This record gives sequence, structure tokens and C-alpha cells, in this order.
Amino acid sequence: MTRPITLFTGQWADLPLEEVARLASGWGYDGLELACWGDHLDPWQWEDDAYVQGKLDLLAKYDLKVYAISNHLKGQAVCDDPIDQRHRDILSDTVWGDGDPEGVRQRAAEEMKHTARLAAKLGVKTVIGFTGSSIWKYVAMFPPASQELIDAGYQDFADRWNPILDVFDEVGVRFAHEVHPSEIAYDYWTTVRTLEAIGHRKTFGLNWDPSHFIWQGLNPVDFILEFKDLIYHVDCKDVKLNLGNGRNGRLGSHLPWSDLRRGWDFVSTGRGDVPWETAFRALNQIGYDGPISVEWEDAGMDRLVGAPEALEFVKRNAFDAPAAAFDAAFSSR
Amino acid sequence: MTRPITLFTGQWADLPLEEVARLASGWGYDGLELACWGDHLDPWQWEDDAYVQGKLDLLAKYDLKVYAISNHLKGQAVCDDPIDQRHRDILSDTVWGDGDPEGVRQRAAEEMKHTARLAAKLGVKTVIGFTGSSIWKYVAMFPPASQELIDAGYQDFADRWNPILDVFDEVGVRFAHEVHPSEIAYDYWTTVRTLEAIGHRKTFGLNWDPSHFIWQGLNPVDFILEFKDLIYHVDCKDVKLNLGNGRNGRLGSHLPWSDLRRGWDFVSTGRGDVPWETAFRALNQIGYDGPISVEWEDAGMDRLVGAPEALEFVKRNAFDAPAAAFDAAFSSR
Amino acid sequence: MTRPITLFTGQWADLPLEEVARLASGWGYDGLELACWGDHLDPWQWEDDAYVQGKLDLLAKYDLKVYAISNHLKGQAVCDDPIDQRHRDILSDTVWGDGDPEGVRQRAAEEMKHTARLAAKLGVKTVIGFTGSSIWKYVAMFPPASQELIDAGYQDFADRWNPILDVFDEVGVRFAHEVHPSEIAYDYWTTVRTLEAIGHRKTFGLNWDPSHFIWQGLNPVDFILEFKDLIYHVDCKDVKLNLGNGRNGRLGSHLPWSDLRRGWDFVSTGRGDVPWETAFRALNQIGYDGPISVEWEDAGMDRLVGAPEALEFVKRNAFDAPAAAFDAAFSSR
Amino acid sequence: MTRPITLFTGQWADLPLEEVARLASGWGYDGLELACWGDHLDPWQWEDDAYVQGKLDLLAKYDLKVYAISNHLKGQAVCDDPIDQRHRDILSDTVWGDGDPEGVRQRAAEEMKHTARLAAKLGVKTVIGFTGSSIWKYVAMFPPASQELIDAGYQDFADRWNPILDVFDEVGVRFAHEVHPSEIAYDYWTTVRTLEAIGHRKTFGLNWDPSHFIWQGLNPVDFILEFKDLIYHVDCKDVKLNLGNGRNGRLGSHLPWSDLRRGWDFVSTGRGDVPWETAFRALNQIGYDGPISVEWEDAGMDRLVGAPEALEFVKRNAFDAPAAAFDAAFSSR
Amino acid sequence: MTRPITLFTGQWADLPLEEVARLASGWGYDGLELACWGDHLDPWQWEDDAYVQGKLDLLAKYDLKVYAISNHLKGQAVCDDPIDQRHRDILSDTVWGDGDPEGVRQRAAEEMKHTARLAAKLGVKTVIGFTGSSIWKYVAMFPPASQELIDAGYQDFADRWNPILDVFDEVGVRFAHEVHPSEIAYDYWTTVRTLEAIGHRKTFGLNWDPSHFIWQGLNPVDFILEFKDLIYHVDCKDVKLNLGNGRNGRLGSHLPWSDLRRGWDFVSTGRGDVPWETAFRALNQIGYDGPISVEWEDAGMDRLVGAPEALEFVKRNAFDAPAAAFDAAFSSR
Amino acid sequence: MTRPITLFTGQWADLPLEEVARLASGWGYDGLELACWGDHLDPWQWEDDAYVQGKLDLLAKYDLKVYAISNHLKGQAVCDDPIDQRHRDILSDTVWGDGDPEGVRQRAAEEMKHTARLAAKLGVKTVIGFTGSSIWKYVAMFPPASQELIDAGYQDFADRWNPILDVFDEVGVRFAHEVHPSEIAYDYWTTVRTLEAIGHRKTFGLNWDPSHFIWQGLNPVDFILEFKDLIYHVDCKDVKLNLGNGRNGRLGSHLPWSDLRRGWDFVSTGRGDVPWETAFRALNQIGYDGPISVEWEDAGMDRLVGAPEALEFVKRNAFDAPAAAFDAAFSSR
Repeated sequence: MTRPITLFTGQWADLPLEEVARLASGWGYDGLELACWGDHLDPWQWEDDAYVQGKLDLLAKYDLKVYAISNHLKGQAVCDDPIDQRHRDILSDTVWGDGDPEGVRQRAAEEMKHTARLAAKLGVKTVIGFTGSSIWKYVAMFPPASQELIDAGYQDFADRWNPILDVFDEVGVRFAHEVHPSEIAYDYWTTVRTLEAIGHRKTFGLNWDPSHFIWQGLNPVDFILEFKDLIYHVDCKDVKLNLGNGRNGRLGSHLPWSDLRRGWDFVSTGRGDVPWETAFRALNQIGYDGPISVEWEDAGMDRLVGAPEALEFVKRNAFDAPAAAFDAAFSSR
Repeated sequence: MTRPITLFTGQWADLPLEEVARLASGWGYDGLELACWGDHLDPWQWEDDAYVQGKLDLLAKYDLKVYAISNHLKGQAVCDDPIDQRHRDILSDTVWGDGDPEGVRQRAAEEMKHTARLAAKLGVKTVIGFTGSSIWKYVAMFPPASQELIDAGYQDFADRWNPILDVFDEVGVRFAHEVHPSEIAYDYWTTVRTLEAIGHRKTFGLNWDPSHFIWQGLNPVDFILEFKDLIYHVDCKDVKLNLGNGRNGRLGSHLPWSDLRRGWDFVSTGRGDVPWETAFRALNQIGYDGPISVEWEDAGMDRLVGAPEALEFVKRNAFDAPAAAFDAAFSSR
Repeated sequence: MTRPITLFTGQWADLPLEEVARLASGWGYDGLELACWGDHLDPWQWEDDAYVQGKLDLLAKYDLKVYAISNHLKGQAVCDDPIDQRHRDILSDTVWGDGDPEGVRQRAAEEMKHTARLAAKLGVKTVIGFTGSSIWKYVAMFPPASQELIDAGYQDFADRWNPILDVFDEVGVRFAHEVHPSEIAYDYWTTVRTLEAIGHRKTFGLNWDPSHFIWQGLNPVDFILEFKDLIYHVDCKDVKLNLGNGRNGRLGSHLPWSDLRRGWDFVSTGRGDVPWETAFRALNQIGYDGPISVEWEDAGMDRLVGAPEALEFVKRNAFDAPAAAFDAAFSSR
Repeated sequence: MTRPITLFTGQWADLPLEEVARLASGWGYDGLELACWGDHLDPWQWEDDAYVQGKLDLLAKYDLKVYAISNHLKGQAVCDDPIDQRHRDILSDTVWGDGDPEGVRQRAAEEMKHTARLAAKLGVKTVIGFTGSSIWKYVAMFPPASQELIDAGYQDFADRWNPILDVFDEVGVRFAHEVHPSEIAYDYWTTVRTLEAIGHRKTFGLNWDPSHFIWQGLNPVDFILEFKDLIYHVDCKDVKLNLGNGRNGRLGSHLPWSDLRRGWDFVSTGRGDVPWETAFRALNQIGYDGPISVEWEDAGMDRLVGAPEALEFVKRNAFDAPAAAFDAAFSSR
Repeated sequence: MTRPITLFTGQWADLPLEEVARLASGWGYDGLELACWGDHLDPWQWEDDAYVQGKLDLLAKYDLKVYAISNHLKGQAVCDDPIDQRHRDILSDTVWGDGDPEGVRQRAAEEMKHTARLAAKLGVKTVIGFTGSSIWKYVAMFPPASQELIDAGYQDFADRWNPILDVFDEVGVRFAHEVHPSEIAYDYWTTVRTLEAIGHRKTFGLNWDPSHFIWQGLNPVDFILEFKDLIYHVDCKDVKLNLGNGRNGRLGSHLPWSDLRRGWDFVSTGRGDVPWETAFRALNQIGYDGPISVEWEDAGMDRLVGAPEALEFVKRNAFDAPAAAFDAAFSSR
Repeated sequence: MTRPITLFTGQWADLPLEEVARLASGWGYDGLELACWGDHLDPWQWEDDAYVQGKLDLLAKYDLKVYAISNHLKGQAVCDDPIDQRHRDILSDTVWGDGDPEGVRQRAAEEMKHTARLAAKLGVKTVIGFTGSSIWKYVAMFPPASQELIDAGYQDFADRWNPILDVFDEVGVRFAHEVHPSEIAYDYWTTVRTLEAIGHRKTFGLNWDPSHFIWQGLNPVDFILEFKDLIYHVDCKDVKLNLGNGRNGRLGSHLPWSDLRRGWDFVSTGRGDVPWETAFRALNQIGYDGPISVEWEDAGMDRLVGAPEALEFVKRNAFDAPAAAFDAAFSSR
């Protein structure tokens, strides 16, 4: 394996970063995809060189690298409508402020700019995150949303993200959007439309995370081949369907994670329905050479058991392409 | 066929009711499921006996009956959050008023009470409709909704609908909720939860409309058997999946109706994936003897072609159960 | 259509034969596959020429032919073990006698011989029926049945049926066994074993009835091609699966016909899961030129509605092969 | 793993119990589910304290526990009809006696009462077994069984088992019926009916063994959730389908185990089609904390190779649920 | 229906054109897609105005139109390698000449140029046909074909067809290639490559014929949407799969048409596995307004029965899109 | 495991045989299936005893055995038509000569005779290989191939191979044909036809290699059972389907190996879609006791990683059948 395997720290933010680093290093991970919440990373401190160096020193102490950082939670708030209690639960006081929706959105946008700046300071070229969306709520299609409303949603996205991306350009960092329900791009065709909305600006690419593809019926392997120039990062989060009895539905029934009446759930990487090996071969085909990051989430399994197992799984299946073409051997007369 | 076949007028409300009656009668429908919008029915005029009689006379003129009336649009507004432009597009000025969300909700609730009263005046025992939902927007599950938020949504539904159902009880009319995305009950498990929330109050039953079951992976036939005492009405709206290429997704991609990049779409009754014949046999098994109503919606076909075709389809497949048990014949020695 | 389409009278034996003849003729059937129960046919009267001529006259009166006669009920009793109340319910007093099992079996065998003789008198070359089985009850495999028990079952079949088939040979009539649960041959491999047990004696062939193939997972089309020289008769009985919800099982759950909790049920010919058109093409391929008989059974539908519909279905799909090879047209330069 | 993993000794009864204990202990099993046949356990000696203590000492010598005992073979004979050579092959002389069917049934019932008493003496709370059935033979549905016959079968079951269960109540032991062909409850709907027949008496629960669910098309995971209060024991026996070629059928074709012309066969736990991991998650969801017992049966594999492999498989997949809810980590701001 | 429905005469070329015209007109077809073989059309007579007018007069006599003409047989020979007996069987003496392969190819190319000229004379804008291929024979991949050989094949195609297409341009006619095994473009990716080889020259478009898509596993509906600007003509030829028994293979086993051991076969339009209705909706979506042509081929059915049935099928399913958007009706308040 | 596991050297012929032997021995393989190309084996030296002994000594040095040798490349040329550059790329100068097709075919036939002789000298009873085919090119079916052409192809095969097989008989060696596209037998029905063509001569048997069965839709397990007396050798080459998106086709689209737009590709043994374990059980059932040979080919994986992994996979799944029947244990009373 020439590509590093990292662990995304988002689902470990209840632990101090040092503890997460100690664990990940012990299991054999090559690095961390640091989350910008908990005590892991704070973008508002990007100008504090000591803060930044402290993070790098901590990683070095455990022989870990950082190739990308993530800020899903604040990216989400940039375009979202409504802004409500759910956001209050995941935003810092700095961004939430008085909770006025438009203010929240603007402070979230500000943090995303800082995230780019922090990435640059850390020597990292990629920021992963969500975009939020003002039109996700129309997914139900009832009451019907007019074409004008839909169009306005994509325009709102472009209006809010272009200034953020300008800062990304200034500091030489790319944004990798994670295609996901609740976001402006949540499936294949909305990804196509989103890229059009932003004028196919290369600063804006994709974080390939197949966990929401499977239950929507999307092909995660083809997605890699189709958007081959835009795969800026890879998150390995797995999902298992539990459909077919005619009662469990695709929309989750407002049931909590790990409840088997849900039509699908996240599971430890390698235990779900994602065609990982074929996907890794597709990453070889497009020449992706960035990190393979394990995003571990499984509400029915102990993460201390699952995370090292997931690492072994990825190592066994994300093998490199062979150096030479195969036919050479065969055509020897 | 001993059960009447009716046509739901909701998708024909751009035409005067008389024109719809003339068409439906000509095609051979037995009656109409009248929509409470357009000029078809106005619940606020329930006390106007002449108005009510005028509607009955019009139906009689075309030899049509009314067995149920529908008010999806106002029911939707009772619990919805947010209330926005989409509601403005489908609500009358009376209900919309100044557009203040809580005011809209209360005026919508008021209209639902009037709808029950109007039904009683018309001699109709069943009102069909939507409930709206304050938690549908959390279907995406990101940002995560706490269990408290979910619980509060069901409570909000109960708080808003119980007073409405009190009026239904007063006038001896039942409400048949249509299980549907955007509503408090949109699949099997949310239906179970909704019925609990309302204390299994018999005034609140179900309108069986399978069109949103298929793409969610739900079994519409089992739904009939499972909720056999609560099937108060039947709407025959069909849906066709267009999945499997790995690009079309279950969530519709914010694409307009009839666009074949959508993962599913409504089609003329009988041309989709609903297992109609088996469903009609299930209705026989539970002893359902109410109307079979055609809800015709197909953005890719002319409704003047489709509506009579749908009637023929239903007639051919919604046959009655035989009078006597079958084995009688076979065991003759 | 050069092949006649007949109606099997087994499921109509509660009606006088004349009434069945009147109905079938009115619907357009070409003939009847007469059942040897009810008042339709009585094999014990085979020597009574007036009786035989009376049946032929009755058919002629309604312009109907007879190509094959059926005696499933008595064939069943030849090998069955146990003989119990279920047999009492379907056997005549003559055959049941005092109900002693071995006596019942021998009188049933006697009636099967008479059936061959009656067929010959009627000018009919084929008798359709069941064989019964002393080992069907071991299908459960618990308590385990030893190989010796299984072998003995096939031997018992051969011992009991060879003398019957000798009579068939004497009068120049063939027996067409219907592969069916409860019988010595109920699927593909048991058919292979059964034919071995009887020494591939050509007097013993098959009545192709696919209604129990589908739920067992057998391919009814391949069955025709595989046993092409032994397809002596064709019964068109349809079946529909109702599986997939994880609760309905393949074994029927001891539930009555037409109950939708069953995993499968018989339905009107053309409304089920049998690949009829392909099967009819297979019959063309093997050169089958006998009658296509509709065995109509659907506990959820009125037979007076279903039987003529089934006839139309068969006419539309059991078309003849073209006279000339197709390529002739294409290769014209 | 906080739940013990045991080995069912039923398929090892040709070996002395001590040899089985030595093997199982060496492989790392935590205990044995003892079979009441071979020399493993004899219920008729329940009053002999030395006998009982001898068994416990033997287990202790190999550091094994016993959590449940099994008596499928005698339970089978309680209701069965017919009683024949197959029973003779698996019953002790004590129970078989002169082979008169009713006497066999009553002596088998007597042994089941002793089995409860022996369990109590051993300090075990659960007895696993079969019930037998007087109506299993009607599964074929030909000759047709009347509703009265079916009803009588369930009544016979209740009549014969209630007195046995009374003894279970007296000694504080539960019976766990294994849903299985040949038994009164063999699928989902017959389980529902069986529980009704016995008045939902809590002494009578279920041994979850999915090996006959898969080929019948039943969902073993939903079964756990549906009967969550009645899952008294778990047997891990695996099955593999070999269907799809149109010749292999669901009913086994009277072919011996391991013959690949069968439509399905038992295989070493973990090598078949049971969705084990999801099932174990379902057991977590319902809070099942009893033993997970490996019932190893695979006629195509050496059991000395398979049994330790099965233990490893179960350990890897029957992981405990995590102590704390997952979302805690994620919602850290 | 505003689009005409035509009958392709290729499979009727053993009959005189007048006879075909008489039949088609009698069944209700709007026109004919004339084949350039048999006596139907001879491209070498394109300069003979009387000949051309004679054909138009004949069509007019039967009230038929011509919208497109076809020359598959000669197009096939343009690139093919080897040229052998199979070509001899379908080529006129003029094109075959002495049978020298290169001479055959060049004379075939000459005829394709004449076909364009004849089309122009007839007032027809589209010529349908095959291209042939020098690399189809490498589909087996053994012995392996080098990338150079593959590249050379596409180049050969471009070299041979560009001069032909120049003549098409001169006379204002388009060529519609039928994607088909044996041709340079036989599936999705080879179509992509073929269009690149020819520089996406608009003279070269596609005849959508889904009959070879189904067995290759291609999606014929997506093909329409993907190549929406290049669908120049539509041929409705149907195909039915007969796979799944593990013996019938996708490659046909060198078995003749209508042999049910083949894995697939052509069948009368509407009796196969092509998703016709969805495909016709896709044609509506891309705005295709040309003819819908029935290419009838079914070696197991009489064409005199099948051709009128196919016409009825197409009429019922190839309906026009509605004039106005659907939502208009629904949003009436 | 009592059967040896060998490595086929065909895909390693770019390496000296000694290097391959060193690697295979180090990984734990029991022997080599030697390819007759590269420097591995040269049939033309069969008379040189020192050459033969040198090969045996080399194997002995690495503790390896040889049970079968392979000569696919020359076998291919015996019947092929056309003979072209692809053959030039894989044939030695000796066989290619001046490249005149008929000369190539005859020299290839000569080498196949030598291969039998060499096998005998090496003490090997089985030669594996291809046959070639003069009619494979007609698989496309366009232009149509007459039945005469097809028949002639099988005759050509018989004419060319019977003299070769005579030599096999002389030296007591069997030929095991690998069913494969491009060959005279490429699927089930062509295998049946091929065996007929050669008069079911026992010298000609089969090398079971399932890698081309899966994408053709053939059942590789049934193939073993069906041709049980003719399975002379086993090659474990795996294949993975990558279909289902409607764009990737079964025919490979002329795309290179490892390109994920192909509909299928070869993968490391155990990583594909072949049902290996069931197949190995089928080999047990027919009593196959020859070598299990790994044919490793995966253009997307390093062979030095894959070959030892494949060996582990085969060891774990190709277990022996148990010595004694299973039921013995269970029926202990």
C-alpha cells in the first residue's frame, strides 16, 4: 500500500485528540483526518502559530500524518434553512451566537474560510465538508416546489459558497464536498446540477463517501469513474440495507440508529453493502493517490473493536495496481 | 363489481366541476371523490344548504355518487413547519391570510373541521387528507434530530389533530389519512407510531394509496392486511420505478415529474409497479366494501386518454370475491 | 390454433355435466377433459354401452369433444399412506367401502383399471391422474427416513401400478401422471427416480401441470423439453407467489385457499406466475399436438368470470408455430 | 462477548459425552447444550442425584457449563401421526415399548415431563425440543384437509402439551419449541396459530433456529424482533440454498444430505445463507442474554474441522452491543 | 399519435413489395421502412426517375408513406473481415462479383453511396444500416487482441465510412447506424468509441433498436437519453431472455432461432423484455418526432398474426406526451 | 486435503520456470500445471530424455509434482479461422512458420501430438488445452450462418482432432478441453454437441474452468454434476461481474483487462463470483481426486500478492468430504 490509511476523528470527538491519536497509532493507522470540532481542531485559531504547531507536534509524537481536515458541521450551516435546534446541538457558541438564522449562516461561512486558512497553515491541501441546502426540505415534493424554488436553491448555494471558495483559492486549498442527504448535492443528478451551479470551478470537488449511495440505489463505483477528476478525498463509511420485509422503509421511519426496523444503517467498514474492493480498483483506475480514510460509525458495535478491524479490512482490499500490464506474461510464446 | 369506482377530482381542479362530472360520467365512473379546492368543493360554505344541494344536484345530473371527499391541501398545513411559498401556492386566501405560519396552521385546522361538517351535510362518512408534520424535515437525519425532537413532533400532531377529530366525532365522520412523505405517517413504522400517538382513536383511519410505498420498499398488500380495520378509503394511484442504472436515485434528484432521470414517477393506474390485483384481493379478504377511487396522475400521458383506460383496468382486476367457498366443487365424489 | 382447447371438469363436479357442457360450449371451448367423479363419469359403468354413448351424445349435443379423461382422486388412493378422513371426503362409497386402508387402495386400483377401459370405450387415448405415495409423508425429513424407506416407497409404487398399467396396455390407453406434491413424483428429481422405478415403461407418461412447479422453484419450460417424449397431456393451472415479506412461507402455513398470508395460491389461468407463452412455444418445439386443457381454480374469483377469460388468454398465447422457417425471408438478396 | 457460546451435542451422540466435552473444551466452547439421547443425558434418571451430579462433575472437569438441555426426539413423538419406523429408529426402547402409536405418544409425553424435572435438577431453566404434529402430513394439501381437521390438529397439540407444561411450571423450567417442518409450528403463521392454541402461555416459548427459515422464504431476523419476549434459546444451524437451475426443488426430492441435487442443505455455521450478523444484532436489540449455541450439521464436511471453525465465526460476529449510545460522540461541538 | 408507425420490410423481402404494401396498409400501418433488397428497393437504380416514381406510386396506391430506407446487408460488407459464404448468401451478384473480399467491400461501399442518393430522390432524410467491423471477431479476446489491433479496427471503420458519409452530406441525408453485434458499435462503450473515431460527425447517427441490448445487459432507455441528439430512427424489435437454468447461455450456443435452448430469441414486438413504454416516454422526452418502425421477427410465430398485433401494441404504448405540464391542475387553490 | 493444489504456470511464462518453481514452493503449492510455452515446456523436445529429466529434476528440487501439462496456445491454432496476427503473437516460430493458415493449423496439430508424447514421458496422464474453432466467428449470427456452416464447423473439429486423439490413445494420455469462448465448445449446449461430434470418445474430456461460465449465465456446479465422468482436470480461475449500470455490457466492449467499464473481468481466485465452495463439494460428490489447480489472473492486482492468497483460499474451501455418513450420529437413541 502506497496510499496512507487514516482515521476520521469526527466520531471520536468526545475524546481528547491525544487519546484518539494514541489509539489510532496503536492500531497502525498512518494518519488522522482531523475534525474541526471537539478539541481536535478550532479553525478560529488559525492565526495562532503555536496552536497550529502544537497540533502537528501531537501528531508527530504518535507518528501520524494529516492529509486532510474536515468541517462538516459548520459547512452544513452555511446554506441550511431552517436553522433550528438540531444546529444548536452541533454548533459552537461562536457560530450559533444569538441563533438568528442568517447570522448563523454568515458566521458558519466565516468559519469555513478560516478552515481553509488553517488547512494551509497545517500544510494540508484538502478540506472536507458539507454545504447545507435551502431546498433539501423540498425533497418530499409535497407541497410541490416550483422549478423557480429549486433553481433559487442552487443559486443560493452558489452565492454563499463562491466567496468562501475565493478564500480557498487564495490559500491554495481545495474543498471536497461530501454527497449526502441534506446537502445541495445528495445524489448523481444533483451533483451534476451543483457542479453546473458553481461553473465547474475546480476548487470545488468531491469527498467520495458511499454510505448514502447504497440505500438511494446509486452506484458508488461508477460515481468514481464519472467524476474522476473531482475525487479529492475518500471516506470509507459502510452501510447495510435491512429491507425486503415490506415494513422497513428507505426513509428510516424516524427510528434511532441501530434499530433493526430501519431500512438501512451504518455499520463498521467492511461489514456492509458497499462494494469496497471494486471501488478501490476504480480509485486505482483514475489514479487517485490520496489518503483512504476510515469513517467509522456503527451504533451496534463497540468502536474500540471496530476501528482496528476496519483498518485490517481496508489494508486487505485497497491494494495497489500492479506495476506492469498483465498481458506481458501471457503472450510469451 | 359491487363496489363503486370513483374518480378523484384533485388533479382536475383546473376544470369546472361540471366538466369533470361530464367526462367521468361519460367514461363510466360511478362517482367522484370530490376535492375541496378549485370550484369543486368549499368547506367554508358548509352551512349554506343551497350550496350543498347544488353540488348534489350536479352529481345527480350526471348520475354520479359521492362517497368521500378530500382535503389534502389544508390538512397538510395543519402541522407543517416550515410554512412557506409552497403552501402559498396551494392554499386559498382565506387560509393563507397574512401568511404568518401559526395563523395559517390554525385556519387550516378550522377548514378541516368545516370539511367534516360539509361531509356530514353531503351524507358522506369519510374525509381523506394529509396531516402535515413538523418533523418530516428531519427525515434527512442531518444534523441529527434528538429523540426528544421526534417525540415532540408526534405530540404536536396529536395536539393539533385531536380537536379536529372531536368535530369529526360530533358529526359522525371519519378521517382517512393518506400515508405519504411529508406527513406524520409516511411508512409502516411511522404509521404504527402515529396510531399510538393518537391513542388508536377510531376516528382516525387510513386512506390506502400505494403510490409512495413502492419506491420506499414497502409492501402495499401487507399494509392492507395489517391495518385491516383502519382502511377507510382506497385511492388507486400508480407509480413506476426507473432505477437500476446507478444514477437515478430514490429521492428524485429535485427533478420535475416525467423526467426519466428520476428514480420513480407517477403513472396512469395500471401502468406502474403496484401489485393491483393482489391488493384488490386483499381488500376482498378484509371485507372492504367502500369505493375504489382512481387517483389519476401521469405527467407523461394525456389525462383524457388515461382516465378511461384506468377505469377499464380497475374493473378488470378489482373483481369481487366469489359467493361460495371454492372447495365445494372439488370434494364432490 | 390447430390444437383443441378443453376445460377440465374436476372443479365443476358440483354441477351436472350437462350444465358444465352448456357453459363451456357457450364460452367457445372445443371440448372437455372429463373428471371421473360427480355425475361426470363413472368408470365402474365402463361396460354399459348405453352409459358410454350417453356421455358422447351429451358432448355432441354441445359440439364438444373429449380427448382425455381424468381420475386424480382414485389414483391418489392407490399408494397413499395413511388413508384417512381426507380420502373419505373425496372417494365414492364403492371405493371407500369399510375404510380399511389396504382395501381402499385395492378398490382404487380396480377403479383405475376401469378408467382405462372406459377411456378406450370413449375413444380416448389418455387418462390423467395422480399416483399417491407411501413416502410423501417423509418429505419433512424428520424423523429422518432411511434410504431403505425411500427405496421401499418407490418399489411400492411400482408394485401397485404395474398391474394397473398392464390393463392400460391391453386397451391401448396411456396414463399421464400429474407431477404434484403428495405423489410419488412431485418434482424434477423424483420424476427421474419414478421413471426409473417403473422401468421407463412408455405406458406411464406425464400430464404437464406447472401449478406446483413455480413455488417449488422448478422450471416448467425446461421440464417440457427434458421429458419431451413423455408429455402426454397439458393442464393449464396457474399459481401466484405471494412471498417476500419474510412471513409468508412456501409451505402454505395450513391456511385456506385465497388467504393472502399463504406464500402462494392458485389463480385463474393467465393471472399467475407461470411463463405460459414460453411454455406453449416449448410444446410447439417438442411437437405436442394434443389438447391444451384449462384447469381453472381460483378461490378468490368467480369461476363464471374466470373460465371464459382463461380461454381467451390461452387462445392468444398458445399460437401455432409458423409453417416455414423464418430465415427464408431474410436471406433474399 | 458476555454471552456464552455452547455446542449442541445432538449431532455428536455417537460419541461418549466425555469425548464431546473434551473436544468442545479444547476448541474453546463455554458450555454444552446437552442432548437427551446417546449417553449424554437420560431424563428417566432425573431422580438419581448421583447421576445428575456425575454429569455436572464431568462438565466441571472440562470447565464447561450447561445452560439448556434438549430433547427433540421425544418431543417429536408426543403429537406425531403416524408413528412409524422412523420413530423406532430414534426412540429408546423405554419410549417405543410395543410400538403402539398412542402408547408411544404417552410415554414420550412422560419423558418430556421428566426432562423438565431433570433440567431443574441440573439448575437449568430451559428445555429445547420439538412438539410433533398430527397435521403436518396435511401440508401437501392433497387430498384437501378440511378446516375442521386443521383446527383439530392444533387442539390435539394443546391437549397433549398443556399437561406437560404444567410440570414445567411446577419445576420452574421453560420449554423452547424449535420452529421446524414436521412440527405444529413450522413457519411464521403457524407459530402465531400455535401460540393462540396454547393461550399464549409463557411457559411455552421458542428456540430460534433459522436453518429451516431460509428455504421456506422466512425472515429469521424479523422473527426475533416479532417474538422478542419468547426467544428463550438460540441454536446456530446454517443452511445453504442450491436452487435456481430449475431442477433442484425446495422440497428436497427425497435425496440424501450433501447430495447437490437437493435444493438446500445444512452447512457448517457461517458457510450458509443465514444473515448471522444481523440476527445477532437483533438478539442484542431484544436484550437476549442467554447462550448462543452452535448446532453443527454439515454432511459434506468433517465435523472435527467444522466445529472449531464455527466457534470462531460466532465469536467474530455475535459481538455485544456497545455500552453507550453512539450519537454522544458526534454531537460534541 | 402524431408520429407515424411504419413496418420495416426487411423480413418480408421474400414477398413482392406490392404484397407487403397491401398487407401493411390493411393492418393500418402509416408507412414502410423499405429494405434495399428483394424487389423492394435497388439503390443501383437511383438515377432512374421512373423507377423511383414507380416506388412512390406504389406506396401512394396503398396510402403509405416512406420516411426512411434501410440497407443493413450492404453496410455490413463495407468493413467486414472475413468476407465469406455468409455474405455470399445475402449479397446481390452485383456486389459479390468474384467474391474477392476487398472488391466486395468496395462495391458494398459504392452501393451505400447510391443508397444515400436514392434516399434523396425518394425525399427521405434517413438511411438505416450496419457498418460491418474488422474487429468484431476479436470479441472473444482469445487469442488476445492487442490494443493496436483494436485501434486499427476503429481507424479502418473511419477510413471506409468517411467517404461514404461525404456523399450523404452532398445529398443531405443522414446515416443511422444500428448498434448490433458484428458491427463496429455493438454496445454502449463501443458506441462512444465509434463516435470518437468518426469525429462526432453529425451525418452519422443511430438507429435505436433495443433487441440486442437486453441480452447484453444494456439499458435501452438510458441509451436514448444519453445519445439524445443522435437518435435518427427507431426500430421496434423485441427480444426475450430464456436464461436462468444454468444451461442456456448468453451467446446462443450456435443454435437456430426459436430453439428454446438458446439464452434469448427475438419475439413479436410487445411479447419480449424490452421496456417499451418507458422507452417511448424517453423518445418523448428527447423530442423524437420521426417514425416508430416495427421490425417484426419471431421465428416461433406466424408473421401474419404477429405484425398486426405488434401495430396495436405500439399504438397503445407509444402515446404522445401531453400538451401542457401536469402541475397546472394540481396547484389550483 | 488429500488432493494436491497446483499452480498453472501459463500466466508466469515471462519468468524462468525455476523462478516460478521457487515462488510456488515457497508459498506452499504442491505442484505445477506446466505450460507448454515460455521456457517451461517444449513439446518438440519430447524425445530428448535429458530434457525431460531436467524438468523433473527441477521440480523435485523444489519439492513440487506435476500432474498435468497445458498447451492452450497451440491447441487454439488447430481449428481456428482466421489465423492472423493474434496467433503470430502467441505461437513459436516453429508453429507459425510462414504463417500460411493451413500450414499453421497442421503444425499446431503436430505439436499437440508431441504434447501427448511429452506428457507420457513426464508420467502425466492429462493434457489441458483449447481446440480452436472455425465457427466461433459466427457467434454474432450476422450475417446469418446456415445450419450447414455450423454443422461443417463441428465436422472440421472432429476431422482435425481425431488424429491427434489417436496419438493420445497410443501413449495413454487424455485430453481435457477447457470450455471457453473461441473454442468449439464454449458453453453447455455446445459442449453437448461437441461430445456428439467426437462420438463421446473418452480420450476427450473436460478441464473445468468456470471463469467464462459466470458471465454467460451458466451454472458451473451443475456442469460438474452433468459431465461427471468427463471432468479430467480443474482450473480455479475467478471472474467478477461488473454489470447492472446499463452501460457495461457482457461482451467486454473491446476494452482492456482491469478497465472497470468492462462488464466482467478476471480476478484473483476467491475474489470473484464463482461459487467455489459449492463447486468443490460437487467435485467431492463425483469423486474427483485429481489436482486442484490455481489459474491466477487479475490485471488489477500484483500476482506476488495474489497467488499465495489464492492458495490459502483454496485450502480453506476445497475440504475433503467426511469419511462417514453424517446421520450415524443423529440416530443414536
